Amino acid sequence: MSDELIFADEQDSRAEQQTQIPWKILIVDDDEEVHTITKLALRNFQFDGRPLVFLHSHSAQEGLDMIRKHPDVALCLLDVVMESDHAGLDMVPKIRDELRNTFVRIVLRTGQPGQAPEETIIADYDINDYKEKTELTRGKLHTLLYSCLRSYRDILALERNRQGLERILLASTQLQQKTFVQDFARGILEQISAILAPDEDALYAQCEGVAAHEESGRLTVVAGTGTYQHDIGKAVTDLLPDSAHAFIAGVETGFHAQHLDSGYFCLYRSSELHLSLLYLKGLTARNAMEKHLLEVFCQNALTAFENLSLRTELEDSQREIVFILGDAVEHRSRETGQHLRRVAEISYILAKASGLSQHQAVLIREAAPLHDLGKIAIPDAVLNKPGPLDPDEWAIMQTHAQHGYDMLHQSDKPILCTGAQIALDHHERWDGKGYPNGLAGTDISLAGRITAIADVFDALSSRRCYKDAWSLDQVKALFQKERGAHFDPDLVDLLMERWDEIADIKAQFPDR
Amino acid sequence: MSDELIFADEQDSRAEQQTQIPWKILIVDDDEEVHTITKLALRNFQFDGRPLVFLHSHSAQEGLDMIRKHPDVALCLLDVVMESDHAGLDMVPKIRDELRNTFVRIVLRTGQPGQAPEETIIADYDINDYKEKTELTRGKLHTLLYSCLRSYRDILALERNRQGLERILLASTQLQQKTFVQDFARGILEQISAILAPDEDALYAQCEGVAAHEESGRLTVVAGTGTYQHDIGKAVTDLLPDSAHAFIAGVETGFHAQHLDSGYFCLYRSSELHLSLLYLKGLTARNAMEKHLLEVFCQNALTAFENLSLRTELEDSQREIVFILGDAVEHRSRETGQHLRRVAEISYILAKASGLSQHQAVLIREAAPLHDLGKIAIPDAVLNKPGPLDPDEWAIMQTHAQHGYDMLHQSDKPILCTGAQIALDHHERWDGKGYPNGLAGTDISLAGRITAIADVFDALSSRRCYKDAWSLDQVKALFQKERGAHFDPDLVDLLMERWDEIADIKAQFPDR
Repeated sequence: MSDELIFADEQDSRAEQQTQIPWKILIVDDDEEVHTITKLALRNFQFDGRPLVFLHSHSAQEGLDMIRKHPDVALCLLDVVMESDHAGLDMVPKIRDELRNTFVRIVLRTGQPGQAPEETIIADYDINDYKEKTELTRGKLHTLLYSCLRSYRDILALERNRQGLERILLASTQLQQKTFVQDFARGILEQISAILAPDEDALYAQCEGVAAHEESGRLTVVAGTGTYQHDIGKAVTDLLPDSAHAFIAGVETGFHAQHLDSGYFCLYRSSELHLSLLYLKGLTARNAMEKHLLEVFCQNALTAFENLSLRTELEDSQREIVFILGDAVEHRSRETGQHLRRVAEISYILAKASGLSQHQAVLIREAAPLHDLGKIAIPDAVLNKPGPLDPDEWAIMQTHAQHGYDMLHQSDKPILCTGAQIALDHHERWDGKGYPNGLAGTDISLAGRITAIADVFDALSSRRCYKDAWSLDQVKALFQKERGAHFDPDLVDLLMERWDEIADIKAQFPDR
Repeated sequence: MSDELIFADEQDSRAEQQTQIPWKILIVDDDEEVHTITKLALRNFQFDGRPLVFLHSHSAQEGLDMIRKHPDVALCLLDVVMESDHAGLDMVPKIRDELRNTFVRIVLRTGQPGQAPEETIIADYDINDYKEKTELTRGKLHTLLYSCLRSYRDILALERNRQGLERILLASTQLQQKTFVQDFARGILEQISAILAPDEDALYAQCEGVAAHEESGRLTVVAGTGTYQHDIGKAVTDLLPDSAHAFIAGVETGFHAQHLDSGYFCLYRSSELHLSLLYLKGLTARNAMEKHLLEVFCQNALTAFENLSLRTELEDSQREIVFILGDAVEHRSRETGQHLRRVAEISYILAKASGLSQHQAVLIREAAPLHDLGKIAIPDAVLNKPGPLDPDEWAIMQTHAQHGYDMLHQSDKPILCTGAQIALDHHERWDGKGYPNGLAGTDISLAGRITAIADVFDALSSRRCYKDAWSLDQVKALFQKERGAHFDPDLVDLLMERWDEIADIKAQFPDR
């Protein structure tokens, strides 16, 4: 997209410039006089306000090279007899099949019709007209040019439209593979240039605009380009021109697009009463086709954007619910602060370090806060006993692992399955001396071994009502001592490798 | 899509049939002899294996009607002088602008070139060629036909391709507005016919196939058409031909499509290791364009399908987490069974009945299980006291409403905000004698008033360890008595109106 497209007031000069782009006419003929006469006869000829420019080739080989170099030749006036009696004819399948140029109009002009009988030639070769050179008076040449350029123009318009739709579909498919709302929204803004003006100078291919989404009743910028690139998180109402506000306020459910002086707006209000908005500053479609492509793209993109936003909101609210659930349980056992958040983040670092996929690591991070869920079933008298537990009480306390598993394991949802595994295994020990099942080594799930380390790391390094926080050196010493005893030795090595990063989690989520 | 497209072995007869569709040539001329001579000259003419069929009009008015009736006329051979000296010329803008037919090739044939000078006519009218009748020998007429039909064929192919892409984008946008995975998947299968063969007999427009999605490691049918319509929930591996299994097993991340003997397969394996599959039995693309459109559509649709599946899985797991959370709290207070599920469903019925939107009603249903979340903060001694509570204990018990609110209200997520409101308000009374805030009437949130009724309805009509279940008549009597006292009178009226439906919830979710 060029700057003229962005700045509507420069559009006139752009339109003028556009009309100056000439139609390329290729003359392939070994008779120099034919070149001269043709140029003369078509002097000052214009079609659709655009002049002609001539390319000249004197052999079939030259002609083919020229078309290869100029795939946008509109019309090729082609002699038959050149290097050989049928050099011109042989060019035709080369253009159509080898160069795959089906758009250029090819008109055969022969001086020796006997060499190339009209009826067979026109049937056998994919040409657009057949003329004897003697037929081609100035008037007939004009008619021929109109006829061919009209077809070429129509075909090219359809092809441009088709390519635009192809680009939209490609963009649509690519955008839908994005996982983050911000990436998606930036993608929409970046694709618009490519869709409307794929061939133009990349330097100008900057579309200034914002993508916004309604969050908690406030239309918030989620992506911006150009002057808006630093406006993420701002309210859209502070950024948009006044003309936009009435439009936004008025729209009902569905998709709405409008060209205003200040630019192009489109909105999608889903049945769930969410609103997504795209504003492209100063953007004006140059013609009906661009307008159509813009609408088709924006409608498709905004619908997908809305879906991704809903999914993101669900992910966020699921995460919050899990933390609330975990916090509620912690609160009962008088543990406070951000323990769960830290356990989740430390588990994530260890999961990634141990080579799990992003997806698996995220699952462990999301499910880790459920590790002590079973404590909800432990009576106050045991859970909050001020002194040490007697053997019976200790046996009751240990049931929280199984209780947690029982609550979660019947689900087939990945986060809950992982949570069940973590709840069950997070008190198992590498040497088999843990509970509830006394599993050892890799019989313990990796998620369980990871959260065991994260849980102990954070418990030791934090202050609790019954103990002070250990120093990081003391914690490190314990893990080195318990490497291969309490804890998976490989995971302890990964913990040591990433010690600073993990210790830093405490600073990011301090106790409140 | 016709049956020939579905049953590949019948494709040959189809191909043959396809080639028989003639090109429509319209002759508009007031001289009957011109009709006869033209037909004679073009007898047995074929282009691309398809014959010609002639339409005859003897005036501009008739000609225009004919084009209106046959928008698929390929070529119009148009006389100039008919009803008036320029009747033929006047037809041109009517065809192009009024009928918006830019595809038909128009060739002017004049017997009196003086009436219609070539150079101005060809420039001023959107025609594709200009001929004097005397020029049109049999050979020249053949050349003209080839020239025009080639252009028409090329333009039509591009236009069909463009329309196919438009339909895909429309389908893509529409599919993305679907909320349910099953609807979406059925939509994909239904759209394929429309995309490949929009004009063909609806009776044949049945595409047999399945859409499947990986759930818990098992590729399960989510939608089926034709013989597969009753296979929802089945494992895909039991339905597909053997040739498919190797293909499915081999695919890596990304989109893959393949034409096998048994039909068309496409797969999308997302980065999250989920797999979506589309199988279209016996479907074979008839040409390169159909193949391309099919791929573009399937890729786009499967990507969107994957996103919707992820969202649905999130919705389901969020719902499960909320129930597990609620169940955990209930379990502590020794309430058992499906109380929460019933409260959620009864609340939903009342929310819909009271005129809330689907979205709002669903929010209340999803959040209702959180109403007693604050009980997690109530000590065992109070929560599970065998006898009646003394005033101090009662005061502690009542704090559960505020506790629940405190846990949830800091979130900006709709489900948690609604949950906070319900937790806070579900023990308020219409007459202001409830707790924690003694609100009255519509000062109590509607969600709170609704769940208060649902909670009491289910508590009374269920057996608890300390009481038997009340009969439905006893429950009804209580609500009638408390109409306008404990409960919102309008909501009690709605409860009475929907009594049977609500009582039925007990049968659907019996205590375990």
